[in-house]
Amino acid sequence: MIATNAIQFALQGDMFHCPIKGEFEYLSDALILIDLNGNIAATYQPFDAEYALARDELKLAGKLTELTKGQYLLPGLVDLHCHAPQWPQAGKGLDLPLYDWLQNYTFPLENRYTDLDFAKEVYGDVTKTLLANGTTSAVYFASIHREPTELLAQTCLDVGQRAFVGKVNMDNAEQCPDYYREASIEKALYETELFVNNVFSLKGNDSGLVSPVITPRFVPSCTPTMLNKLGELVQKYDLHMQTHCSESDWARDYSQTQFGKTDIEIYADAGLLNNKSVLAHSIFLTEKDVEMIKRYNAGIGHCPLSNMFFANAAMQTRELLDHGVQIGLGSDIAGAPSPSIFRAAFDAVSHSRVREEGVDVKLSASDRGTAGSRVSFIEAFWMATTGGAQVLDSKTGVFAKHYHFDAIVLETNKDVGNLRIWPDFDTPKDILEKIICLAQKENIKRVWVQGKQVV
Amino acid sequence: MIATNAIQFALQGDMFHCPIKGEFEYLSDALILIDLNGNIAATYQPFDAEYALARDELKLAGKLTELTKGQYLLPGLVDLHCHAPQWPQAGKGLDLPLYDWLQNYTFPLENRYTDLDFAKEVYGDVTKTLLANGTTSAVYFASIHREPTELLAQTCLDVGQRAFVGKVNMDNAEQCPDYYREASIEKALYETELFVNNVFSLKGNDSGLVSPVITPRFVPSCTPTMLNKLGELVQKYDLHMQTHCSESDWARDYSQTQFGKTDIEIYADAGLLNNKSVLAHSIFLTEKDVEMIKRYNAGIGHCPLSNMFFANAAMQTRELLDHGVQIGLGSDIAGAPSPSIFRAAFDAVSHSRVREEGVDVKLSASDRGTAGSRVSFIEAFWMATTGGAQVLDSKTGVFAKHYHFDAIVLETNKDVGNLRIWPDFDTPKDILEKIICLAQKENIKRVWVQGKQVV
Repeated sequence: MIATNAIQFALQGDMFHCPIKGEFEYLSDALILIDLNGNIAATYQPFDAEYALARDELKLAGKLTELTKGQYLLPGLVDLHCHAPQWPQAGKGLDLPLYDWLQNYTFPLENRYTDLDFAKEVYGDVTKTLLANGTTSAVYFASIHREPTELLAQTCLDVGQRAFVGKVNMDNAEQCPDYYREASIEKALYETELFVNNVFSLKGNDSGLVSPVITPRFVPSCTPTMLNKLGELVQKYDLHMQTHCSESDWARDYSQTQFGKTDIEIYADAGLLNNKSVLAHSIFLTEKDVEMIKRYNAGIGHCPLSNMFFANAAMQTRELLDHGVQIGLGSDIAGAPSPSIFRAAFDAVSHSRVREEGVDVKLSASDRGTAGSRVSFIEAFWMATTGGAQVLDSKTGVFAKHYHFDAIVLETNKDVGNLRIWPDFDTPKDILEKIICLAQKENIKRVWVQGKQVV
Repeated sequence: MIATNAIQFALQGDMFHCPIKGEFEYLSDALILIDLNGNIAATYQPFDAEYALARDELKLAGKLTELTKGQYLLPGLVDLHCHAPQWPQAGKGLDLPLYDWLQNYTFPLENRYTDLDFAKEVYGDVTKTLLANGTTSAVYFASIHREPTELLAQTCLDVGQRAFVGKVNMDNAEQCPDYYREASIEKALYETELFVNNVFSLKGNDSGLVSPVITPRFVPSCTPTMLNKLGELVQKYDLHMQTHCSESDWARDYSQTQFGKTDIEIYADAGLLNNKSVLAHSIFLTEKDVEMIKRYNAGIGHCPLSNMFFANAAMQTRELLDHGVQIGLGSDIAGAPSPSIFRAAFDAVSHSRVREEGVDVKLSASDRGTAGSRVSFIEAFWMATTGGAQVLDSKTGVFAKHYHFDAIVLETNKDVGNLRIWPDFDTPKDILEKIICLAQKENIKRVWVQGKQVV
């Protein structure tokens, strides 16, 4: 006898998740029970003693949904790095050098968000598009403006997406254009702290679905005072923090030239690092940087597709995973064009393969790449789900008791998208790899966040 | 007054194409007239004298279709390298080394096609899926079996795809498994020549929509006698030829070790090269190879995504384009998982960017990559359309009089896929780049081949 009254609904079907890095679990015809708060009450497999009874009682109570064959339940995806205001720019100007891309496209675009109608249109579309692509948790950079950023937070609540939203801080007159820069440090800090408190008290945010994030853009765009003051806010409220970290040769050199320190050293000294920090990119890390990231239990938002265009090199993903650094994935809209974290997982593999093999035909095979540096598809999917959730200190990404039920249903039947399963000769591992390689928006049939169906 | 009787139908709307490598043309609110044979009779722009009258008369005759705003007419895409029988394997086993992948997955799978029911199911799905992804011309490797390969050719005719289909030849006992190898050279040649003639005389193939292709798998799988005899067939009928060329370190070394020649030298000596040859991959080319490819006016099928996994290096796409070598794109199903040539175009850019920047963070920026080796999005789209058509010596890929009307309609309105156009601040170049970056099957609303709507 189970307490069906305490169960909101249950699902029966084939499920995949990756509780352990590098491994996957396939739960065939399993049962997952969601409680009234949207958390997982239990999971049962057919060989469990409770399975048959629970299934029958929930069915009788009208609370059981059975997935059809060819549908798979997966944890929702986590996007650790998305510039929401850059959404209209996705896929545009990627042939440009980063500086031109920022000055000619990005900053003028981000500055448009004082127009709240425009903000409403874009933020409504980007949050819904990410959800439709299976992203149940998203970490957003917004713009430097408080009100439009609060609108983004409210939009996430309205569409039902778990979100981590930051008002961008940038005040360094040497690196930021006059028209798109904080008026003063005092004003910036006042607005940022107000933003934090306003997000906590947003109507409908009692369960904390949306969290504020302290968001210094990156070292070159912030004065040291700004970074230190933002660090104080992180400590005062124990907040999430997101920023760019050692993304390119130029960014790495800037910190060394100006401050004689690495980005990680600068962020640590400013008090910005904690167990919920998201360090986007993190390409040019020193050994000491890696140790510091681990000591703070901070995490990396790996954005492989953007790295191919703007990072000047490949992340040392293999070594960082092996060192036990927390890593998840990011779309980096619009440094990369795709809002799909399935795509990011695929690209994490392919960029690691290119790193392993190298690129230059003129070199001998032994000199061309970095042997043993590949990342597996299963590791990539772990990053897209469990890994990303760990970076955020969020109880999602795994189908286990007390975890929030953030999940998606993948449809692999013919005529839908490009993903094809052949039951006669595809193993569960083959099926999961095919999903990672080929799942696209068309294949995502349902999405739940905190037990609420939102797609 | 135009001869509306000689016009099958006309389309009015916004169009893109790339007649010249590295450039694009945007035809705003243009008119394109298709004759009774499915060829382009004329294209008019609003400033042309004939535009208004032609438009009015065709509308009156009920032969005009107007695209809506946000829809764009593009030339159909050309896939120069697709292993049709590997379709069930797309996205599977890509973590394996190439040898294991071939022996454990590919060869056993290709050998299943003697089962004509299985062949019918897979070939029906792969041809329709490619069409739905916008691929109006496809160059297929089938399996070593004649009858199933004829079934593939017939399927292409049935679904209305322009196709170039080859029965694979592989007879080298040292490199091919016993169960998946030609019984004898004599039998193989008899079957191959029979296949060629049977495809030419397929019912419904009077217009030559489907062409036979001589298809030696690659140097290691063929004996020299086989290659020479296949070369005689190419010359006798002036046929298309497809094969793999210098794809990896191993393949390059095999030819040198066994024959003291490059792949190109071997193919040329065997009489296999002409102006319709498709050389898939072509990663490790010598300067002499490049000159020979140009002399024969042969072409390269560039498969960037597959290269990331299996080629050991990046193609020298920049230099080959600059040398005027004919190049188009291939999906390389299932050495890469995606059937989308939009994806191949994007990956041609991203792999070239990784080549330009390099991958190894431990090297200085100046030693890391190959400066100036990037390929632009517009060049990639040229390869996906005009370039691919030129490789095949096919009058498609451009909206110009007497060209076959192979075309697709891209839908960019909201809620469809992930592609978003913002008319207020996207230029035509931005729009085309966004399409290349983000178009997926969902966005492809109509497809025509030879003037016939097939999707």
